[in-house]
Amino acid sequence: MPSAGVVSPDVSDENRDSPDAPPLAKRILIGDPLTSEQVDDQLLPKRMALPIFASDALSSVAYAPQELVMILLIGGLTFLSFTPLVAAAVVVLLIVVVLSYRQLIKAYPSGGGDYEVASKNLGEIPGVIVAAALLVDYVLTVAVSVASGVDNIISAVPGLDPFRVELAVGFVILIIIVNLRGVREASLVFAIPTYVFIASVGFMIVTGLIRTFLGDAPIASSHDFSVQAENLSQAAVILLILRAFSSGCSALTGVEAVSNGVPAFRAPKVRNAQSTLVLMGSIAACLFAGLTALALITGVHYAENPCDLVGFDCTNPQPSLMAQIASATFGGGSILFFVVQAATACVLLLAANTAFNGFPLLGAVLARDGYAPKSLNTRGDRLVFSNGMILLGIGAMIVLVVFQARLTTLIQLYIIGVFVSFSLGQIGMVRHWRRVLRGPAEDAAGSGIDGASASDRRSAKIGLIINSTGAVMTVLVLLIVTITKFTHGAYLVFFAIPILAFLMLGVKRYYRDVEHEIAIDDTTKFGATGDLAIVLVNRLQKPVVKAIDYAIAAKHGKTLAVHVAVASDDAATLQKDWADHLVPIPLVIVESPYRSFAQPVTQFIKQYREKHGSSVVTVYLPQYIVGHWWESFLHNRRARRLANQLMLVHGVSITLVPWLLDSSELIYGRRSRPLPGQERAGRPVVVNGRRAHRPAGPPQD
Amino acid sequence: MPSAGVVSPDVSDENRDSPDAPPLAKRILIGDPLTSEQVDDQLLPKRMALPIFASDALSSVAYAPQELVMILLIGGLTFLSFTPLVAAAVVVLLIVVVLSYRQLIKAYPSGGGDYEVASKNLGEIPGVIVAAALLVDYVLTVAVSVASGVDNIISAVPGLDPFRVELAVGFVILIIIVNLRGVREASLVFAIPTYVFIASVGFMIVTGLIRTFLGDAPIASSHDFSVQAENLSQAAVILLILRAFSSGCSALTGVEAVSNGVPAFRAPKVRNAQSTLVLMGSIAACLFAGLTALALITGVHYAENPCDLVGFDCTNPQPSLMAQIASATFGGGSILFFVVQAATACVLLLAANTAFNGFPLLGAVLARDGYAPKSLNTRGDRLVFSNGMILLGIGAMIVLVVFQARLTTLIQLYIIGVFVSFSLGQIGMVRHWRRVLRGPAEDAAGSGIDGASASDRRSAKIGLIINSTGAVMTVLVLLIVTITKFTHGAYLVFFAIPILAFLMLGVKRYYRDVEHEIAIDDTTKFGATGDLAIVLVNRLQKPVVKAIDYAIAAKHGKTLAVHVAVASDDAATLQKDWADHLVPIPLVIVESPYRSFAQPVTQFIKQYREKHGSSVVTVYLPQYIVGHWWESFLHNRRARRLANQLMLVHGVSITLVPWLLDSSELIYGRRSRPLPGQERAGRPVVVNGRRAHRPAGPPQD
Repeated sequence: MPSAGVVSPDVSDENRDSPDAPPLAKRILIGDPLTSEQVDDQLLPKRMALPIFASDALSSVAYAPQELVMILLIGGLTFLSFTPLVAAAVVVLLIVVVLSYRQLIKAYPSGGGDYEVASKNLGEIPGVIVAAALLVDYVLTVAVSVASGVDNIISAVPGLDPFRVELAVGFVILIIIVNLRGVREASLVFAIPTYVFIASVGFMIVTGLIRTFLGDAPIASSHDFSVQAENLSQAAVILLILRAFSSGCSALTGVEAVSNGVPAFRAPKVRNAQSTLVLMGSIAACLFAGLTALALITGVHYAENPCDLVGFDCTNPQPSLMAQIASATFGGGSILFFVVQAATACVLLLAANTAFNGFPLLGAVLARDGYAPKSLNTRGDRLVFSNGMILLGIGAMIVLVVFQARLTTLIQLYIIGVFVSFSLGQIGMVRHWRRVLRGPAEDAAGSGIDGASASDRRSAKIGLIINSTGAVMTVLVLLIVTITKFTHGAYLVFFAIPILAFLMLGVKRYYRDVEHEIAIDDTTKFGATGDLAIVLVNRLQKPVVKAIDYAIAAKHGKTLAVHVAVASDDAATLQKDWADHLVPIPLVIVESPYRSFAQPVTQFIKQYREKHGSSVVTVYLPQYIVGHWWESFLHNRRARRLANQLMLVHGVSITLVPWLLDSSELIYGRRSRPLPGQERAGRPVVVNGRRAHRPAGPPQD
Repeated sequence: MPSAGVVSPDVSDENRDSPDAPPLAKRILIGDPLTSEQVDDQLLPKRMALPIFASDALSSVAYAPQELVMILLIGGLTFLSFTPLVAAAVVVLLIVVVLSYRQLIKAYPSGGGDYEVASKNLGEIPGVIVAAALLVDYVLTVAVSVASGVDNIISAVPGLDPFRVELAVGFVILIIIVNLRGVREASLVFAIPTYVFIASVGFMIVTGLIRTFLGDAPIASSHDFSVQAENLSQAAVILLILRAFSSGCSALTGVEAVSNGVPAFRAPKVRNAQSTLVLMGSIAACLFAGLTALALITGVHYAENPCDLVGFDCTNPQPSLMAQIASATFGGGSILFFVVQAATACVLLLAANTAFNGFPLLGAVLARDGYAPKSLNTRGDRLVFSNGMILLGIGAMIVLVVFQARLTTLIQLYIIGVFVSFSLGQIGMVRHWRRVLRGPAEDAAGSGIDGASASDRRSAKIGLIINSTGAVMTVLVLLIVTITKFTHGAYLVFFAIPILAFLMLGVKRYYRDVEHEIAIDDTTKFGATGDLAIVLVNRLQKPVVKAIDYAIAAKHGKTLAVHVAVASDDAATLQKDWADHLVPIPLVIVESPYRSFAQPVTQFIKQYREKHGSSVVTVYLPQYIVGHWWESFLHNRRARRLANQLMLVHGVSITLVPWLLDSSELIYGRRSRPLPGQERAGRPVVVNGRRAHRPAGPPQD
């Protein structure tokens, strides 16, 4: 069978079908549909925007210090002395990136983020690469956050270890459902754990530091484990420190989320987004520095392979760094330990939400620009971009299953994409400011600055300095990350990004070709005349009678019934019925030796045209409409298959004449026929197709 | 969205669509399509029918002796002395069942087997129960045969043990593909291993027995292992022996396959089927007896739990009984050992083929009688019932995965179904013969005997005796099997059979209701007049122009264009285009606050009818036809969704006007437009919908 997909010819923009009457189950799960006007009510105040857009950046401090320490420990315990240096470098980088994005939000407040900056300032290819990098990273954000969240749950409840992958996939499904309910409800769900996380981890850091100052420094459970270290050459030492820095940089992920979400903020959007970004950056820097300090003080020894820890029974799961610090600070079974673990797990699982806000928005922007399928720009019932969310969720689940929800493996793939988009975004911003500074003559298109004033020029100069610093640093870090992670799995990302970018360019070209193909031009005119209607008949039953009646009503140039004879008995029976019921159109029997239905009809149309000249052909196909999903298994889909095949014949259109089976009419609240009791009350059961469906008066739907 | 399935209204009988032009990949995998006339060429000579229909019955001797010995060994080594007794009982039962089925084939040669006998002689419910039991057992036949085959492969190559389930599922997929290619090719593939199996196992038995007579009896590797036995009460001893008998009865499975396959035999069908059945029964009895004898002689000790074998390192897989005998007779690493193992594995894997012949045939018979979905009666390209095969394969794969391809667990579920159908079939045959004997006055309907002659009466008496014996014995065995296996998992089958039977009765009732609903009655007449055509317009592009042109050509009572305005900009643009291009039908804009498309159209139709009276409404929807599967992801399916929703409105039919995108036209060998180079040659790009698709002369398809 030819694999012709049949789809809607609509290539216009957003806001597609929300179903007219969503079934109850969907309403309970997703909520009531909203009108387009209600979009404004869904905008976020700062106190809600912070947990929504910051959960990724904040939660990443739960794994960044652990990965940093873990990589350093590959070199042995003495390498831990590099920790403050490496952590300080990460914090400095974080500050620079936050300041750079403050500038970006101001210059490009439409929510396109790095993608918009890169495509406007650097051209189509860099823009598409940024988009591809971001899409990959959104998927990995979900996978890494969920894997780390599950890790922390297992640290508190080790018995769950065998269900690591199942738990991770289950949480992704949960997050998808929560997000499909829409932005604001999601924010309420997400706000509380994020704030609890900030408070409890902050309290833990303060408590730990105070205890240290009082001379009662907390001691981690892994404090006394030594590590089997490799002997390293000098070059390997430098590489190891750089690798530790790369892994620590995972603390920076999620900073760009705010810049992509500016349109979701309440007015004044830019100012609110900027202050949310700075607040988020400050909190993340404090938590990261505090946790790294406590890890050193308590002496957490966390190994890539737990069996390298001398003294640790490596058949058990290794407790996370967060769990070890919480246990050291508050005591292993204490309530506060469980509060920290629960808040960490929650905020990590919910951090995936950042991606569930960012990915669909970016997908919609890409769809609007023609780089992604139009369906990503379809708002669902709840004004969220449902298709993007489902795509993201599926992607993350695949990654989690393939890598068995192992955090350390996933981290290797991570942040490459982030730094690709950081770098291209910052380079784009440098171009942007230089263009602004080149003066009012050369208008800075799209920057919102028409003719730069003195104060504009000053702020542009500041912006240029900040973003130049940002660009240099992020490019440098991108190089470091690439060198240190490439062989550890990051090469997969280096395949994925160009492939995605290539696909996007292909999609763009495809849409452009279709637009060109279907655009009306000067030669388009009307004037098709004289057509043939063919009613396909198998047996003479009511649905067929209805189709015949409709065909007659449309007054086609010529109306014929065609029967495809796969069994000669059927044909004879039909011819008898035809005569008996005085059907007012002629019946043509065509043979089908190969039991095909479409081929003989095609042949018949061809022969008819050879004899009677060209004509528009309309094929009438009766179709059952069933009320229950299971009924569709009991009917074959021949009408649809036939329609798909006949539509490939030039000049043929298909008319589907529905026959609502009683089961469907009871469900949709209508009946084509009187109820059994009424049948004898003198009313005809079927008068003709038209009246049969609307027994009396105005239509009842 | 309402869950309305849309399906073909055809409820007639078999031989549905084979696609007109199967894609190359399908042709290579499945083979060229065949005409209906070619069905006769596919009939089987005896030498081919034997391996096809007998592989199940023959291969079951590979596991039946093993299961028999294994159950007896639960009671300890002394219980092995019951082996000859139990084995003899199995052989006697086998002979009786074979003779009973010889009678059945003669009386009911149409291939309905036990199902036909039970439904014709005992009524609808017993017939459906037999059908359900057989369907369940076909699935289990595939699962058990494949599991045992994999067992024997692992006995020869123990390194494959970790991939047991993967191997099993892989083989099922392979068998599905081989079978989808059609009966005759399958038979060639299956004939060689079956004959090699009979020859090599026969040779092994003869060799072993001769060596024993010469005083050089072969000794199995497990000969010296003792068994940890339970202490059993007298009742438990009897139960254990009966359980061993039940498991030994698995040797009988597959005997009924011939009776279900009579129509696939060459003429004289009945005689050929009968002699094939007897030949098969004799070979099976000899192999079963020989293998059981050799098992006793070589001293094979096979335990349900291998760790109960004292002296066996139960971290290794336990070699199958067949492997142990082959190894004892021919030597462990000898070529003949591997020949026996390979042939056993092949014939076991291929035994599943019996089910792949039987299940689809039974499914088709059930579909013909209205107890199963019509689609099971659809012959695929290669004249086999593809849907049934795929269903069977999926069922078997699920069973294999759920029970982890463990033979001993699967055997517990097995043969209940076989003996349910054996018993009901034999009881039905008893009824049949008694009806024949009651004389010519009471015509034996459906038996083919119109008025019994003297010789007929004599043969009927013989039949009555044989089938009465068969009925008594199979009912007895059914009771034993049920009692001894119920708690070991067979209760699952006791759930499955009534549920299936209940579903079949429901399907029957459903089809009857639909038939009644759509049957033409006296009140059916023609006369729908005066209709409205609505062309749904999003933007004014060529596909829409074509739809408008077609609507005009059909000369409806009134033709309107309707635009659903989800964005007011679009509506304004459209109105301007409408005026610019002098579109000859009026444009109506309807608002859509909830971004729905179907609801405003429904509302419009309702209001139109209130103003202008009742009318038939045809909605024209342009549709893209794409050439590559991936293109369908790039268009949304709005037209189809809309069509499904609007078809629920009374009196509305849908006309799909296809627009073949260039990609599809290149693939299907047609172009709607001249190639880019020709575009300037003065030919209009689109003149009107009709001519556009047939540039010149007669249609080119």
